[in-house]
Amino acid sequence: MGEKQGSNNHSHCFDPFISPNPITSFNPVQRFPKINETAFISQFSSVIGDVTISDNVYVAPNVSIRADEGTPFYIGSNSNIQDGVILHGLLTKKIAVGTKRYSIFIGNEVTIAHGALVHGPCYIADKVFVGFNAIVYTAIVGKGAFISYNAVVTNGVRIPPDRFVPPGANIDSQEKADALSPVPKDSKEFAHEVQRVNQEFPASYHLLFGKNRCSCGVAYDQY
Amino acid sequence: MGEKQGSNNHSHCFDPFISPNPITSFNPVQRFPKINETAFISQFSSVIGDVTISDNVYVAPNVSIRADEGTPFYIGSNSNIQDGVILHGLLTKKIAVGTKRYSIFIGNEVTIAHGALVHGPCYIADKVFVGFNAIVYTAIVGKGAFISYNAVVTNGVRIPPDRFVPPGANIDSQEKADALSPVPKDSKEFAHEVQRVNQEFPASYHLLFGKNRCSCGVAYDQY
Amino acid sequence: MGEKQGSNNHSHCFDPFISPNPITSFNPVQRFPKINETAFISQFSSVIGDVTISDNVYVAPNVSIRADEGTPFYIGSNSNIQDGVILHGLLTKKIAVGTKRYSIFIGNEVTIAHGALVHGPCYIADKVFVGFNAIVYTAIVGKGAFISYNAVVTNGVRIPPDRFVPPGANIDSQEKADALSPVPKDSKEFAHEVQRVNQEFPASYHLLFGKNRCSCGVAYDQY
Repeated sequence: MGEKQGSNNHSHCFDPFISPNPITSFNPVQRFPKINETAFISQFSSVIGDVTISDNVYVAPNVSIRADEGTPFYIGSNSNIQDGVILHGLLTKKIAVGTKRYSIFIGNEVTIAHGALVHGPCYIADKVFVGFNAIVYTAIVGKGAFISYNAVVTNGVRIPPDRFVPPGANIDSQEKADALSPVPKDSKEFAHEVQRVNQEFPASYHLLFGKNRCSCGVAYDQY
Repeated sequence: MGEKQGSNNHSHCFDPFISPNPITSFNPVQRFPKINETAFISQFSSVIGDVTISDNVYVAPNVSIRADEGTPFYIGSNSNIQDGVILHGLLTKKIAVGTKRYSIFIGNEVTIAHGALVHGPCYIADKVFVGFNAIVYTAIVGKGAFISYNAVVTNGVRIPPDRFVPPGANIDSQEKADALSPVPKDSKEFAHEVQRVNQEFPASYHLLFGKNRCSCGVAYDQY
Repeated sequence: MGEKQGSNNHSHCFDPFISPNPITSFNPVQRFPKINETAFISQFSSVIGDVTISDNVYVAPNVSIRADEGTPFYIGSNSNIQDGVILHGLLTKKIAVGTKRYSIFIGNEVTIAHGALVHGPCYIADKVFVGFNAIVYTAIVGKGAFISYNAVVTNGVRIPPDRFVPPGANIDSQEKADALSPVPKDSKEFAHEVQRVNQEFPASYHLLFGKNRCSCGVAYDQY
């Protein structure tokens, strides 16, 4: 004890892991992520395979975006992917968006909160909020919907736009999806405020890191 | 296949990521974490911004302590933060503790078990146990309370001291909080035993790593 | 903004963290993991202590396999451990398998899906499927059982072979375990398909990384 871990050493690298998919029988072509240079991917996070990440996207630490099975993934402008989120997709099922087919398509200004799991096939429209530890799996989520913490949306359901999924709800049939209420005003405002805060992060984290992504802190302090 | 990854190479670094917050419109001053030198922060974990980590705190791998929005955070002596835990806070709401205001205040000898989410504003008093995958968000948790796995404590509730939140319970009103039973004896003993074990980890992990935090194992073995 | 993080720099290392357990009063002997060279452990994942990982096991990113308290752990051939999974064990309780005692024993061709928590003491037999965010803790799970997303299996229960635990179920008594239905045909096929896909990953990821485990992608792209 007593050593100062990390102090006097500012050269440790904390790059995210960015890589093409591995070559498998089911994905025989290596495809690289396309990450807009204004997006920011945090330390201890991975982006693997045919993943498009648009401008001003913020990806927090300990996120796994892994397009090595279901592929491709798309993440739209100004969206944010919070700590511990996982994006992965089934091999055989996809979602059509225009003339293309995706394993996971996430629109613009979407928030995927801490600990959520987004598992393809799924489509998440613009301005959707996905809450803490929620699961979205084999689902289509309409514009402006609000999925509360611990909720599950699955089994091929289509959530209509601007609907509210209550905390812990398990929406696994279209009847349940159709019976959902509109998003209350305070939840709408909350989702908007989360966007406002997170849209500042990509540029500010790029500035913090600078070019070298080095550790800037003194790890241990005597106080 | 067949290569021995990591073998014969003991210089890879596994420092945690320690950094000030990025500068934003809402947090325009960079503040560094203050981490007591007897605390231990594991590989693949981050501490960002105005975070105080007291003596003999153990932080497991893949933890994100991110005071870049709500701030500051405080973690008291001998507390432990298990694998995959996330600490983050809302920008605009804080908790008063004495004359200071915190986004997250965690007392002494607290256990935050695997996969739990602690989201500010919240106050967690001494000797609280927060179970697997639990969520504590916008809440005050009294001394010695026991929050079981998958439970949620939210919506401004105040959990009285020494109360037991059952597995999967959603405590989102003060009536529900006030109706909770005392912590059973076996849960109290369990929380105490978890403390006993985890209080040995900071010093023992510091010894294991030594000054250089290098990988000490042979990664792949033919057996 | 505008810097190309990680580009033109292929020497960053993304080794997993492999280490013996730290020496404590309760585990006074350092034991190293034994990892078969055909297994693959991803970036940002840890294997600590007396852990045996058999041939062709795939461990995804951000996994913590931490045998520093309960020990030893065993993971059988062709099993896969998905993103964010945590394996940890209680100090004092173990499971007997033949003449040996384990904190966690996982058989062959087991899938532990994204975000699940396996906490010893537990035994998971061959061909079991553990779903998203499920918790298996102090339990014995029979061959071919299927544990759905968000389910909990705990409190010393023994799940008979080939039984189906529904989504979100809390199986905390032997009566509940004994009342479970057989695994439906589509879930059996699903579990089999997940195995088929994941058994390709160890070799394909070893090829992708090669000997040096460097980042192969260009981190940021202008498109």
